[in-house]
Amino acid sequence: MDLDDLAARLREFAVERDWEQFHAPKNLSMALAVEAAELMEHFQWLSEKESAALAPEAKRKAAEELADVFIYTVRLAERLGVDLETAVEEKIRANAAKYPVEKSRGNKRKYTEL
Amino acid sequence: MDLDDLAARLREFAVERDWEQFHAPKNLSMALAVEAAELMEHFQWLSEKESAALAPEAKRKAAEELADVFIYTVRLAERLGVDLETAVEEKIRANAAKYPVEKSRGNKRKYTEL
Amino acid sequence: MDLDDLAARLREFAVERDWEQFHAPKNLSMALAVEAAELMEHFQWLSEKESAALAPEAKRKAAEELADVFIYTVRLAERLGVDLETAVEEKIRANAAKYPVEKSRGNKRKYTEL
Amino acid sequence: MDLDDLAARLREFAVERDWEQFHAPKNLSMALAVEAAELMEHFQWLSEKESAALAPEAKRKAAEELADVFIYTVRLAERLGVDLETAVEEKIRANAAKYPVEKSRGNKRKYTEL
Repeated sequence: MDLDDLAARLREFAVERDWEQFHAPKNLSMALAVEAAELMEHFQWLSEKESAALAPEAKRKAAEELADVFIYTVRLAERLGVDLETAVEEKIRANAAKYPVEKSRGNKRKYTEL
Repeated sequence: MDLDDLAARLREFAVERDWEQFHAPKNLSMALAVEAAELMEHFQWLSEKESAALAPEAKRKAAEELADVFIYTVRLAERLGVDLETAVEEKIRANAAKYPVEKSRGNKRKYTEL
Repeated sequence: MDLDDLAARLREFAVERDWEQFHAPKNLSMALAVEAAELMEHFQWLSEKESAALAPEAKRKAAEELADVFIYTVRLAERLGVDLETAVEEKIRANAAKYPVEKSRGNKRKYTEL
Repeated sequence: MDLDDLAARLREFAVERDWEQFHAPKNLSMALAVEAAELMEHFQWLSEKESAALAPEAKRKAAEELADVFIYTVRLAERLGVDLETAVEEKIRANAAKYPVEKSRGNKRKYTEL
């Protein structure tokens, strides 16, 4: 996936509709949190096991919500001037340092409590 | 960005730490919503205008939270067997149909109210 | 609990600090969602069973987050001119109508799917 | 409002429908976060000023979402054995200590940055 290309298409989509005025990072962060909650809503009364074995229709709905989250993430990064690919690589490195394999194995504690 | 490659690296990260047991889609959807809220927290007392002009340190923090959101989105899609690229393309097509340029211009109403 | 009295105390707290300018309903709704996510964060890697048997320290932290959620709910209702007690009573009546005992027993489906 | 009475009525509502099995604190914290996001959704594209001047229909919808948030907060507190009134009083005291009037006036910074 070409994230720059996707960001450009999403910007074009907003520009054509004169929506840039609404797409302040503050507002996009709200829209992103709302979509993440809508995704989560599909799982709230399911057991962990049930959540790992969705029926096709439920999986299709979850895919739609995931797409919404993804789209707002790319849109917000573009508006903030954040390079997502770089940010993700740095985060993975930071996580590897915070959660050494030996200390973290089978352990769900936060790194601050390891 | 190669999303399949990223998904594989994130899975490997979890497997090495024996974290797959914690990464039920239900739990990942919670973690994703939590990260989206942490991102939003940076903007809650800012005006829309201030949110579009972050100082470098604030931008760096927002980039970190965006990376967390991105990572959990890719991880969750992988656990659900959802192809993100396809889902995003379908969503963009659906949004174009729901929000025709003529009807949507400068209009922040939901498609159900257009 | 006297909700009107609590709302008045929270308003006074904000007025003394010249915070009314930041407490637009939009911003308070963000703060409320952030606190709800912080509360949820305590449960994200716990099983349902573990979540029902918190150790004293974890329970104390959850109580703090619940208080934050409660405070922002009362503050936001006051800013919007919403009478919470009336709204809650109406909601309970609506829920009873949407979820008749016979149809809902042991059933986690949404009322739209009953 | 009598919070103990409300908590008892909500428990009875759940027991009658055999829903206690679904109401693990983990799941209730998800439902609470989802409702907080639904409330926030009403404000995401509004300016702060618009959010303070809702039309009657929008206000009615916000009241419904506020009621949902309130109900899940009380339900979750009951399931965790948390006394909300005590927790709220302690939180107000803690906030007063964290945000002294002199230092906080007109200042939106977090107490950790005062």
